[in-house]
Amino acid sequence: MSILDTLTDSFKRFPGIGSRQARRFAYFLLNSPESFRNELAQQISGLSSEIKQCASCYRFFRKENGTTLCPTCIDPARDNTTLLVLEKDMDFENIHGMGAYSGRYFILGGSLPILSDDPARRIRIRQLLTRVESGASQGLKEIILAFGANAEGENTAQYVSKTLAPIAEKHTITITVLGKGLSTGTELEYSDSDTFVHALRNRR
Amino acid sequence: MSILDTLTDSFKRFPGIGSRQARRFAYFLLNSPESFRNELAQQISGLSSEIKQCASCYRFFRKENGTTLCPTCIDPARDNTTLLVLEKDMDFENIHGMGAYSGRYFILGGSLPILSDDPARRIRIRQLLTRVESGASQGLKEIILAFGANAEGENTAQYVSKTLAPIAEKHTITITVLGKGLSTGTELEYSDSDTFVHALRNRR
Amino acid sequence: MSILDTLTDSFKRFPGIGSRQARRFAYFLLNSPESFRNELAQQISGLSSEIKQCASCYRFFRKENGTTLCPTCIDPARDNTTLLVLEKDMDFENIHGMGAYSGRYFILGGSLPILSDDPARRIRIRQLLTRVESGASQGLKEIILAFGANAEGENTAQYVSKTLAPIAEKHTITITVLGKGLSTGTELEYSDSDTFVHALRNRR
Amino acid sequence: MSILDTLTDSFKRFPGIGSRQARRFAYFLLNSPESFRNELAQQISGLSSEIKQCASCYRFFRKENGTTLCPTCIDPARDNTTLLVLEKDMDFENIHGMGAYSGRYFILGGSLPILSDDPARRIRIRQLLTRVESGASQGLKEIILAFGANAEGENTAQYVSKTLAPIAEKHTITITVLGKGLSTGTELEYSDSDTFVHALRNRR
Repeated sequence: MSILDTLTDSFKRFPGIGSRQARRFAYFLLNSPESFRNELAQQISGLSSEIKQCASCYRFFRKENGTTLCPTCIDPARDNTTLLVLEKDMDFENIHGMGAYSGRYFILGGSLPILSDDPARRIRIRQLLTRVESGASQGLKEIILAFGANAEGENTAQYVSKTLAPIAEKHTITITVLGKGLSTGTELEYSDSDTFVHALRNRR
Repeated sequence: MSILDTLTDSFKRFPGIGSRQARRFAYFLLNSPESFRNELAQQISGLSSEIKQCASCYRFFRKENGTTLCPTCIDPARDNTTLLVLEKDMDFENIHGMGAYSGRYFILGGSLPILSDDPARRIRIRQLLTRVESGASQGLKEIILAFGANAEGENTAQYVSKTLAPIAEKHTITITVLGKGLSTGTELEYSDSDTFVHALRNRR
Repeated sequence: MSILDTLTDSFKRFPGIGSRQARRFAYFLLNSPESFRNELAQQISGLSSEIKQCASCYRFFRKENGTTLCPTCIDPARDNTTLLVLEKDMDFENIHGMGAYSGRYFILGGSLPILSDDPARRIRIRQLLTRVESGASQGLKEIILAFGANAEGENTAQYVSKTLAPIAEKHTITITVLGKGLSTGTELEYSDSDTFVHALRNRR
Repeated sequence: MSILDTLTDSFKRFPGIGSRQARRFAYFLLNSPESFRNELAQQISGLSSEIKQCASCYRFFRKENGTTLCPTCIDPARDNTTLLVLEKDMDFENIHGMGAYSGRYFILGGSLPILSDDPARRIRIRQLLTRVESGASQGLKEIILAFGANAEGENTAQYVSKTLAPIAEKHTITITVLGKGLSTGTELEYSDSDTFVHALRNRR
């Protein structure tokens, strides 16, 4: 197999990329200046030395001064009483950028399809238990599960709730999920029953 | 202009139908048996004699026995204390079919684009005032505005709220809107700030 | 079943219209002025008296003066030596509007899916044989089959060719099909083998 | 700017990739094993040493034994009398894979948008002139321009034709373009005039 095929196969592993676009990426790089290829290769292999994963929330951040915690986790202005559990870094970027939530975060690193076995290999459930235990001593009062509003997200929320239940009870910590209702763009003509029922219950 | 062009123009007024599909409809009818065309024509011209608009909720229903009220409005099992205001009949069909709401309905007959003038010609605001006045004497306690979660729906809700405010205050009737939050399918990575803020507030 | 359901069912028979849009059409008519509904019903039931099918090319045209032939078929300026066979009236409208073809037309009234039985009920093959027979005496030299470039169109072309072969041979009439090649928008990266092979053969 | 932003910017230069997907690629790599990142980086930086551009047709091929020509250009079984000029390597992969063309190839390396200045910087026109000159001594009789069937492709064909005209005339080489007509999927109802006119002319 030529390096072109090997590189195409690597790009096929990228999210949302099929064979043809992977091939197009390979040719795009061949047609790019060698300097661009070398920069890109260095950026990719340099990720390990410049980015680390936060020891508390598990999101990726820029390494600096040997700290093991990301800027958000060490920010003294943030509220220790709530912990927002998200599926992935892209969710964090979107939500954190809104500036509407002032508590702490935790990145679960995935979600659980229905009937998936070995959940602990798919999501950071053990790390979350550890985080909740240590949070309890710093005033943690509520864990907010913020997953996608679909079957997989609900399955994940159920599993996480059930697994956290004992420790939450022990420390009197509440577990909540984001509220459902009409989201921007929902039309009543097309809304599903689940969405309407919650929107009706959450009316104000 | 030939009748084919005239018919095409009529179909172009149908919701979501452009020139080409309107033309295709006209040819579809030409290629249909004359019996189908005659049935369709009778169904269309027969709407007036077989369907009437409810004098209370303004939705369309099948005329029977000279009643002026639709089956839902005369159903004694429904709750008089809440009135769900919807934009259109298709919204009613979807929401009513869910069976999750047990109160009364009102069909506004449209919505108000931002900066639209003469709102009373676009929506049944006068009829709604009359309906609220008569409802007040039958125990009405809450008006729930259920419009699309978009700028036009919000503008409509604002106008209706403001217009109903005096009569609602007089009779101690609350005006609410459907709750916002994650709706089925929402992903945190893509959710807008408005949706997230409400989902956070409505967490449970 | 109410007239609203009956009307919805009628609209569901329209090309490309599903349940929901059919229902929306019914409500659109209910919300339209009665005058519009009556005009539409008259246009639909009036088609039979104002439009007729040409006795030669079988397309629909506006009845006038008791003629049985459409304006294109009686136009003395058009060329009798070629006959363009099309699937449907919409094809005629598009092609004739271009002004690039100066011969005669025939509307087949359909196409033949692969393995369809009883072709003579699906397309006007008998009428086409009659048309070719009469055309032969007026100088017809070529029949051009102009069907969609897909499996169904090719199957139709094969069936029509085979069926016309004896009469064509008898009168020394050629049967041709439209040429294949790159059509507007085709990109070489995505073109299929059949298209490229013809484009290569038809290079100029 | 962090390395995550820099890497995101690099991916934004990839064909068809916007900001959000570029970001998602960066996080995908962060969440991948370090071994995958290192392999990918090596594949990218290794392109230069393992792939070279053919000195005759300018497509990319796997370096071997110090040859400067790709396997297709040195294949003695291919026909020297025709030269198919394509825009890019992806076109070559698609067309060559069909096995329907047996002559030589030339990759132009781009196309010319209308009114683009300095064409010689966008496409390999000088290299094509050289290739035609040397081909003339080896029996080249026809240059086939095979570009996309759109305004840009036609503009490219015009420019290349005009530029090659003197040398083609000198060596009695014909310049052709791929034929137009119905391509797989074209329907007569939607076909544009240009496509139909060519399909009519190329009928057979």
